[in-house]
Amino acid sequence: MLRSLALLLTLLVALTAGACTRMTTPATSADLKAIQELRSNFEAAMAAGDADKAASLYGPDAIRMVEGQPSIMGREAILASYRMAMANDKLELSLNSEETKVAGDWAFDRGQFMNHVTPKAGGPMVMEMGKYLVILQKQADGSWKVAREIGNSNEPPPAPAPTAPAPPAK
Amino acid sequence: MLRSLALLLTLLVALTAGACTRMTTPATSADLKAIQELRSNFEAAMAAGDADKAASLYGPDAIRMVEGQPSIMGREAILASYRMAMANDKLELSLNSEETKVAGDWAFDRGQFMNHVTPKAGGPMVMEMGKYLVILQKQADGSWKVAREIGNSNEPPPAPAPTAPAPPAK
Repeated sequence: MLRSLALLLTLLVALTAGACTRMTTPATSADLKAIQELRSNFEAAMAAGDADKAASLYGPDAIRMVEGQPSIMGREAILASYRMAMANDKLELSLNSEETKVAGDWAFDRGQFMNHVTPKAGGPMVMEMGKYLVILQKQADGSWKVAREIGNSNEPPPAPAPTAPAPPAK
Repeated sequence: MLRSLALLLTLLVALTAGACTRMTTPATSADLKAIQELRSNFEAAMAAGDADKAASLYGPDAIRMVEGQPSIMGREAILASYRMAMANDKLELSLNSEETKVAGDWAFDRGQFMNHVTPKAGGPMVMEMGKYLVILQKQADGSWKVAREIGNSNEPPPAPAPTAPAPPAK
């Protein structure tokens, strides 16, 4: 009887130790669900052309790293960047997350994006496909916000326009 | 006297609580030093044209997200990507880290890069400037390796070549 109790205690201690080790990077289903909702809210803000809603998903000190321009620092500048983009184009963005990792109050989300960009002044719709990596940070109120965001295109840039006229065909 | 003791105890409890809060994302100087060394080793591998050394700084399941192409998955494919790049060009890369955050066994490093690319077949050197975001993961042996890597250029892509000849000047 005593022996069985000792065995049970040993087993319990081992299980508890295992749980504690895993606790070093806890990814609760609540965290993953919150990050999934953040992604959906971002897609919805893009589709609605709602720059304020899009910017509200970023932390106050967030940094956006958009291809073809220097870093955009802070939520106010991020709001301005979305206002300008949405004034010029209708954006239809879809995010296909391939992984989300949570480590304490930080997380990252990585995947593929597809963006349909239609100029409001007219002209053909352009489809962009690429990769994204987003760092998220849990806020004091328990919500998750985008802290760092970067992406790039899967397509090579177009060949540069010739600087001199092409020689005439013979 | 009792009052002073109570005040001292309150102060001690407050200080301890503060320390515990900061402990949730411990960034030891050893971790930060290891990540700084990883960055230096990466620059050295580029300068030496040493693809094997460059690839050895990535974890086995690392993902490289290079502008203009799909994701490169796993260390073997990453090695092949460096071999090809270094066969074509001499690369001189410098990384200017702007922040490193450690959260348990995960970390991210963000900053600016400058890359001087000189074609081995001849031709002008091209300078690329941009932003990078790297996720690092502590390995079982305590070393840090690159887990995810993405960057993009600060410069907009060149204007596409005209599909029809320009009208003649009048």
